[in-house]
Amino acid sequence: MSVDDIRKARSASEFNRENLESVLRGRFFYAPAFELYGGVSGLYDYGPPGCAFQANVVDLWRKHFILEEDMLEVDCSMLTPYEVLKTSGHVDKFSDWMCRDLKTGEIFRADHLVEEVLEARLKGDKAARGISEEEVEEDAEKKKRKKKVKQIKAVKLSDHVVKEYQDILAKIDGYSGPELGELMVKYNIGNPATGEPLEAPREFNLMFETAIGPSGHMKGYLRPETAQGQFLNFSKLLEFNNGKTPFASASIGKSFRNEISPRAGLLRVREFLMAEIEHFLDPEDKSHPKFHEVKDVKLSFLPRELQEAGSTEPVVKTIGEAVESKMVDNETLGYFIARIAQFLLKIGVDPNRMRFRQHLANEMAHYAADCWDGELLTSYGWIECVGCADRSAYDLSVHSDKTKQKLVVRQKLDKPVEVTRWEIDLTKKLFGPKFRKDAPKVEAHLLNLSQEELASKAEELKNTGKLVLKVNGIEGEVEMDDKFVTIERRTKTEHVREYIPNVIEPSFGIGRIIYSVFEHCFWSRPEDTARAVLSFPPLVAPSKVLLVPLSNHKDLAPVTAEVSKLLRREKIPFKVDDSGVSIGKRYARNDELGTPFGVTIDFDSVKDGSVTLRERDSTKQVRGSADEIIKAIREITYNDASWEEGTKNLAPFVSQSETE
Amino acid sequence: MSVDDIRKARSASEFNRENLESVLRGRFFYAPAFELYGGVSGLYDYGPPGCAFQANVVDLWRKHFILEEDMLEVDCSMLTPYEVLKTSGHVDKFSDWMCRDLKTGEIFRADHLVEEVLEARLKGDKAARGISEEEVEEDAEKKKRKKKVKQIKAVKLSDHVVKEYQDILAKIDGYSGPELGELMVKYNIGNPATGEPLEAPREFNLMFETAIGPSGHMKGYLRPETAQGQFLNFSKLLEFNNGKTPFASASIGKSFRNEISPRAGLLRVREFLMAEIEHFLDPEDKSHPKFHEVKDVKLSFLPRELQEAGSTEPVVKTIGEAVESKMVDNETLGYFIARIAQFLLKIGVDPNRMRFRQHLANEMAHYAADCWDGELLTSYGWIECVGCADRSAYDLSVHSDKTKQKLVVRQKLDKPVEVTRWEIDLTKKLFGPKFRKDAPKVEAHLLNLSQEELASKAEELKNTGKLVLKVNGIEGEVEMDDKFVTIERRTKTEHVREYIPNVIEPSFGIGRIIYSVFEHCFWSRPEDTARAVLSFPPLVAPSKVLLVPLSNHKDLAPVTAEVSKLLRREKIPFKVDDSGVSIGKRYARNDELGTPFGVTIDFDSVKDGSVTLRERDSTKQVRGSADEIIKAIREITYNDASWEEGTKNLAPFVSQSETE
Repeated sequence: MSVDDIRKARSASEFNRENLESVLRGRFFYAPAFELYGGVSGLYDYGPPGCAFQANVVDLWRKHFILEEDMLEVDCSMLTPYEVLKTSGHVDKFSDWMCRDLKTGEIFRADHLVEEVLEARLKGDKAARGISEEEVEEDAEKKKRKKKVKQIKAVKLSDHVVKEYQDILAKIDGYSGPELGELMVKYNIGNPATGEPLEAPREFNLMFETAIGPSGHMKGYLRPETAQGQFLNFSKLLEFNNGKTPFASASIGKSFRNEISPRAGLLRVREFLMAEIEHFLDPEDKSHPKFHEVKDVKLSFLPRELQEAGSTEPVVKTIGEAVESKMVDNETLGYFIARIAQFLLKIGVDPNRMRFRQHLANEMAHYAADCWDGELLTSYGWIECVGCADRSAYDLSVHSDKTKQKLVVRQKLDKPVEVTRWEIDLTKKLFGPKFRKDAPKVEAHLLNLSQEELASKAEELKNTGKLVLKVNGIEGEVEMDDKFVTIERRTKTEHVREYIPNVIEPSFGIGRIIYSVFEHCFWSRPEDTARAVLSFPPLVAPSKVLLVPLSNHKDLAPVTAEVSKLLRREKIPFKVDDSGVSIGKRYARNDELGTPFGVTIDFDSVKDGSVTLRERDSTKQVRGSADEIIKAIREITYNDASWEEGTKNLAPFVSQSETE
Repeated sequence: MSVDDIRKARSASEFNRENLESVLRGRFFYAPAFELYGGVSGLYDYGPPGCAFQANVVDLWRKHFILEEDMLEVDCSMLTPYEVLKTSGHVDKFSDWMCRDLKTGEIFRADHLVEEVLEARLKGDKAARGISEEEVEEDAEKKKRKKKVKQIKAVKLSDHVVKEYQDILAKIDGYSGPELGELMVKYNIGNPATGEPLEAPREFNLMFETAIGPSGHMKGYLRPETAQGQFLNFSKLLEFNNGKTPFASASIGKSFRNEISPRAGLLRVREFLMAEIEHFLDPEDKSHPKFHEVKDVKLSFLPRELQEAGSTEPVVKTIGEAVESKMVDNETLGYFIARIAQFLLKIGVDPNRMRFRQHLANEMAHYAADCWDGELLTSYGWIECVGCADRSAYDLSVHSDKTKQKLVVRQKLDKPVEVTRWEIDLTKKLFGPKFRKDAPKVEAHLLNLSQEELASKAEELKNTGKLVLKVNGIEGEVEMDDKFVTIERRTKTEHVREYIPNVIEPSFGIGRIIYSVFEHCFWSRPEDTARAVLSFPPLVAPSKVLLVPLSNHKDLAPVTAEVSKLLRREKIPFKVDDSGVSIGKRYARNDELGTPFGVTIDFDSVKDGSVTLRERDSTKQVRGSADEIIKAIREITYNDASWEEGTKNLAPFVSQSETE
């Protein structure tokens, strides 16, 4: 098959999730953890191929981001004391709403429950109206969930109820817990199995809690993200970088999230590998010196406006255009979006199933200035796999405030300057009593006002004696009188410019990315749909070579040993399969493992040392000496050569068993 | 300096822990975690050089063990349900004894407290008797602890009390909690600061506890080791390996231990990286096919007998001799001991500060058949960094027993055989009621009896109607009558041999190894003791190259950019230092970071493209084109070439600033 034929075959192959899962479980890419003990939902173990794939993805991530961009990698503690996560906002905010069935003990996540029950009723309505199932358009997004509602009852609803349900579903992600509770009462939503009413929604913090030390008094959590460890080390990192910005730190490690009811396999788990970058930069200069290198990268964007207009059709443009048109806020954010895309494509993501979706205003963390999710299309719908957010100065500000330690960049000015600028002074002691837990947000908001905004606020203060603000993350308006703030235009001689840097944060959910790549690389041979293939790029494939002696004949063993030795010396991961089964069966097994190359040893190999090299996707074969074949494998796997380039000096080989 | 000179300088340099720590903290190899919030003892963050060093060590570990031995790597859940760790014995056994001061709230680890108080009193006695401090031999092992007893009072003890104290100290690791409590009462040991009595010792389980899921009812722990996850996946791994043994699984990941009062810096922490191997093998055949490759490896051994005779002088012999003489139990255990040593030497361990110490009988886990610790000598004494244990069939037996799932190897016999052998049947329902929590140990002991032992036990049963056993991990003798067991000689036709494999477990504490390497690689230049060097082997050094333009002159920038590009293309980690300070200062800074090579760009570089390469330890310099220099760096770093081999085609270079 030619490269084009393979591409056609791959895209023609209809995706079947059960087949994929059967391959992934059967070949031990992963398995539910503690299966021997009945398993624990949301916890998985990676077996040898899954683990090797993950290690290769992480290794490539490290090279693509850390090495290439000269980032400062850190490895921080997972156990985190209460205080830190209280300050960051996780103790108060990192939660979902759950409701219990007090009779059965079952626990439901409130928003998912309301959504599924209303959807089921709408379907029942359509059924009652005689609209067939096929006509009912199903949102792929919803398929990812294991349904709580097992049976659809054909019950007709009145037209205005249908309209109400549709309105609720359209904004289902925006309801607070009490609002969900009201909906449950109003629409009589209970346990779908029994119809019995449930307890009102309660907030459930998603962090795993533990006690550090023997006293039992030091409350701690397992970190929900690696970011906080990086923020806390900001000053040390800045010093390590000789005081210069911009610079980025990075961290790869496990984080934890105590999901209420985990589902969707590897996509929603309680323990997961993250790779996060915190790029610290001057809030007044978000340009990027290497932006020109990526400006022509073409991507699919789903900006806020499109979504608000109800569209899911992305616009395709270069990142250069996206930044220039201000659709993407700044160069650095744009640079990372392009680099994220390049990384995803390298590890096997299908470019047609990748998009960048901008967060809606109500969806964005309160501190974020802009945020784009790298989403991958899977059989569960579009999945958020990478977040790329401008976190502004929020995190450093709140930690600095709490610990009374400066977390700033001091930029020495070449010569002192007379600076006239708007300055704002906060009467901090008034903020706590008035705004309580919102105080840091209000303060951060005020301290982040631009010169233009300060000018206008000074005017407002002068005219009305008070300020009225709309602060991200706080409902309604915030009001304060002129005892809280002073805004003045002052002239000073400055020798040093001091500022809290902003943070651009690309954050990768490695497990979700890996699962998406599994889906994108999975297909079946057109001649036999039972023959599944995982077409991983060689660089990230768990093993690179399957070494196959034609038979168990003892004469072949020395050649197998010799080729093994060569591969090991070249540090190319390989497996020997000298089981008695047919060559075809052995290759089929390894197509499922995604091994890109097969090396066959036959009786001619004993005579002249030549071996056959087989390519997984096309099943093409070439012949050469072991040295030549290994060189080709190395070039294709590690040096970006195509199959044609890598094997151009090798003779094509037609085996008796080509039909396998 | 020649290689010999450097070696001399390094060993002549007197080690000073404060200097090392000041370099490690100053260069942000590591730092106490959450320092901004006052820190949490026992938790540390690795900064950029520490993190890169760790990543390189892990990468090398993966190549040295997993790739070389074709091991099956897995990545298992850290969150572990109660049941699993109950079965493994950790819920009951993984604990230390603590005692509280009810007035101050202070908590002490009981064994450490008794030890330190008695030691202090013995010192006070010597002082009172007029024996000077210098003559008091201090055990290096003890230095690792931050002393609770701050002041030594010169109080003479009676001779028999001195003798009693010495006897207690000699067996301090062997006391149970209640025994420690009795000692505290008898010798009036209280809070060293106040003299006030303490609460009696209580058992404190060292696992971090948490609740999994929203109900709060599923108790879980953070894993104390990665091993259990590997055991639980045994059947899947065996299937992945086509049913064949021996094979090994391996896992690299964080484990947790809630220390009562962590001390000794990176050596005793609450969250740590482990790398563990579980090698599953036939209990009747512990030979290793590659043993011949390592049999001549010479090592320092401290076997049980030597220690029991009070000696700390190791015997030096080859691992071949050690196995042949049965000092090391079997070839596979010996093979791993040799491979462990080779790994440690590769990453920079000083061979003169490495030994393998056999566990004493009372120190060994109850299930272990033999156990050797790879110990490294540091300023805290000899530190256990790698354990290499034969865990017998214990773990698989207990999990199998608990879950009623077979965890066995089924070996198909080529032809059915008539086998006459001793067989033992257990009347399992009687074991639980009689032996309670010891039942699995008694059962495992009986099922693991050899044919010879079974023959003798059958005789005993026939003659006395009962069995009397000494079971590892159970105090005293275990007795049972003939209703508990049947031992018979039976003849059967067998088509399949079924057995629970034994496990050899090499287990690496990566953090401890890394700290030891820091100590072993640390020295000061003889000409200036303030100039510290970390002589890491290039392969594991955090960064490989420091790129140093002679000055900030703009003409040098293009060459710096060009060399950077070449290094990046070759994927060689490097840093540019274009800070204004002198070349000497810049190199001094990087000697502290352990960067093995410096590449200097000067005005000749602009003319002819040549650059200078500097070697960290000898400060030798050679000159060549950027391509040649990078080739040399690559050969020395990744292909084991010596400096002399790697640079043999390059011209020596004497710079004006050689004295730096």
